[in-house]
Amino acid sequence: MKKIINSPETVVEDMLRGIVAANPQLALAEGMSVIYRKEMSKKVGLVSGGGSGHEPAHAGYVGRGMLDAAVSGNVFSSPDPERILEAIKRADSGKGVLLIIKNYSGDCMNFTMAQELAEMEDIEVDYVIVRDDVAVEDSLHSTGRRGIAGTVFVHKICGAMAETGGSLEQVKAVAEKTIANVRSIGMALSSCTIPAIGKPGFALAEDEMEIGMGIHGEPGVGRCKIMPAKELAEVMLDRIIRDFDKDGGIGGEVSLMVNGYGATPLMELFILNAEVGNILHEKGVTIYKTYVGNYMTALDMAGSSITLLRMDEELKSLLDAVVDTPALKGGA
Amino acid sequence: MKKIINSPETVVEDMLRGIVAANPQLALAEGMSVIYRKEMSKKVGLVSGGGSGHEPAHAGYVGRGMLDAAVSGNVFSSPDPERILEAIKRADSGKGVLLIIKNYSGDCMNFTMAQELAEMEDIEVDYVIVRDDVAVEDSLHSTGRRGIAGTVFVHKICGAMAETGGSLEQVKAVAEKTIANVRSIGMALSSCTIPAIGKPGFALAEDEMEIGMGIHGEPGVGRCKIMPAKELAEVMLDRIIRDFDKDGGIGGEVSLMVNGYGATPLMELFILNAEVGNILHEKGVTIYKTYVGNYMTALDMAGSSITLLRMDEELKSLLDAVVDTPALKGGA
Repeated sequence: MKKIINSPETVVEDMLRGIVAANPQLALAEGMSVIYRKEMSKKVGLVSGGGSGHEPAHAGYVGRGMLDAAVSGNVFSSPDPERILEAIKRADSGKGVLLIIKNYSGDCMNFTMAQELAEMEDIEVDYVIVRDDVAVEDSLHSTGRRGIAGTVFVHKICGAMAETGGSLEQVKAVAEKTIANVRSIGMALSSCTIPAIGKPGFALAEDEMEIGMGIHGEPGVGRCKIMPAKELAEVMLDRIIRDFDKDGGIGGEVSLMVNGYGATPLMELFILNAEVGNILHEKGVTIYKTYVGNYMTALDMAGSSITLLRMDEELKSLLDAVVDTPALKGGA
Repeated sequence: MKKIINSPETVVEDMLRGIVAANPQLALAEGMSVIYRKEMSKKVGLVSGGGSGHEPAHAGYVGRGMLDAAVSGNVFSSPDPERILEAIKRADSGKGVLLIIKNYSGDCMNFTMAQELAEMEDIEVDYVIVRDDVAVEDSLHSTGRRGIAGTVFVHKICGAMAETGGSLEQVKAVAEKTIANVRSIGMALSSCTIPAIGKPGFALAEDEMEIGMGIHGEPGVGRCKIMPAKELAEVMLDRIIRDFDKDGGIGGEVSLMVNGYGATPLMELFILNAEVGNILHEKGVTIYKTYVGNYMTALDMAGSSITLLRMDEELKSLLDAVVDTPALKGGA
């Protein structure tokens, strides 16, 4: 295993120290793996999290206009309810807290248990579950679709709504609207290596890729020969568009995220983006905003996911709102 | 070779299309591999570039507060003078143009030839050469030290100075000041694969790393066994600090960049950042601002570089100025 680490046992703790060292506007609740904003106005609190290994998700999205606290479990392993409760407390300013959960069984169980614990302490908590991955209906770690990079759009849009003074009900409503309009699919060229295991989770042959691969290396739709970027874009978009077709169609305007899984360089992501853009253009679909980069990763996996978000005027204005987090900044 | 590409021959062209597709505020001079700002005020123009494969450098730094045009050669290969001239013309608004060149023989030759061509067309052009890599004095592709990630600090600081109306002389002076105060060193865990070659440039054994590796896979200081992040940070910082010691010492306050080479996940960069921060803290050095991410890459190389910039009040205020580019945004 070739990694820049101290020891497999301390990767999460060491990484969290590195995140707050680089971002003095954030703080770390020691022993709790919770990163939170030092300064926060009175507003609905937003909490997300899950297993580590998906950086910058989720601590990289803590800041003005997005999350208020992010809680990290071990690599690819859900944080326990006690830590999630700590994140809820850090995010709570008396106007209630929304949990944004990616749809994995462990996360759903632990986040809803934390909700119950928080309610016992009179904190109002509600939650949404992101299930944007159209690859498979049930998976190794989820009942129903998995939550992947589309979660970043949910963070951004809810964050903007909360920042403008929306109530917990309103923030939840716009989260559900985003979830209803977002679809993703991934692909991988290589496996990733969990530090504590020390070797790749599976092997892909030198000429193989896997379509629909999850962000923990869970099986997707199936393996195939490596194809050119243009064909890959067609195959991936086709699955997303067919899924939109079950629910009113892709519509006329989308935002697009071409996400890297951790070991894929920007050059390749931009090449994929060019092909995705061409296909959408040919179909008469306008792209409102494009994000290309590493937004929701899977350690050192080589590969990418494509996410489309159907836009309307409300979502546009919330997506455009200024944000200031480690991973998304400016009029992002 | 496992890459998301159409064909090795078209990677640069396809990538540039993908960059402008994602960033409608930028335009591509077709056939010239030049990306430039569509809207620019009357100010000193800033141009950088070089071989492709270092993304987001340099096209990702085109925008308000940084560069006005970036020119791309083939992968790891300098753009020809004609293309650089095109970039100069795109960046010129009548107040002169500064070229920011990384110290590689091909770039130095081609950028200065383009300067001569531009001067024949009555465009005032000057240049600076970045040589921040302390690893080796001469290298495979350079006479004198190589230019690596420290170049991003030069872009940022010159960009801010140009945006506030500085003259060509003033912008060049602050560029030279930044160059005099910036030092970097890299390390690699793996080689990278140039698409047209199709296989890794060299092999590192499963337990080996190389300290001082350049951003084209050029040899560095030497190979050694993989060490823990803490020890790696010590070894890398030691070389930088010893170099500062020849020139007045590291001083009391620096900005820090922990840069990924393309295939190294953020988790590992943050772990390295934590260790670098600890050592600087122990030495009584304050960190003004920290950047952790992929800023100057080497295709799909696994590895990282560390850059320190000695700060003063002028550099602080220029580093803090608002910027709006694909790769750096906000009060970056």
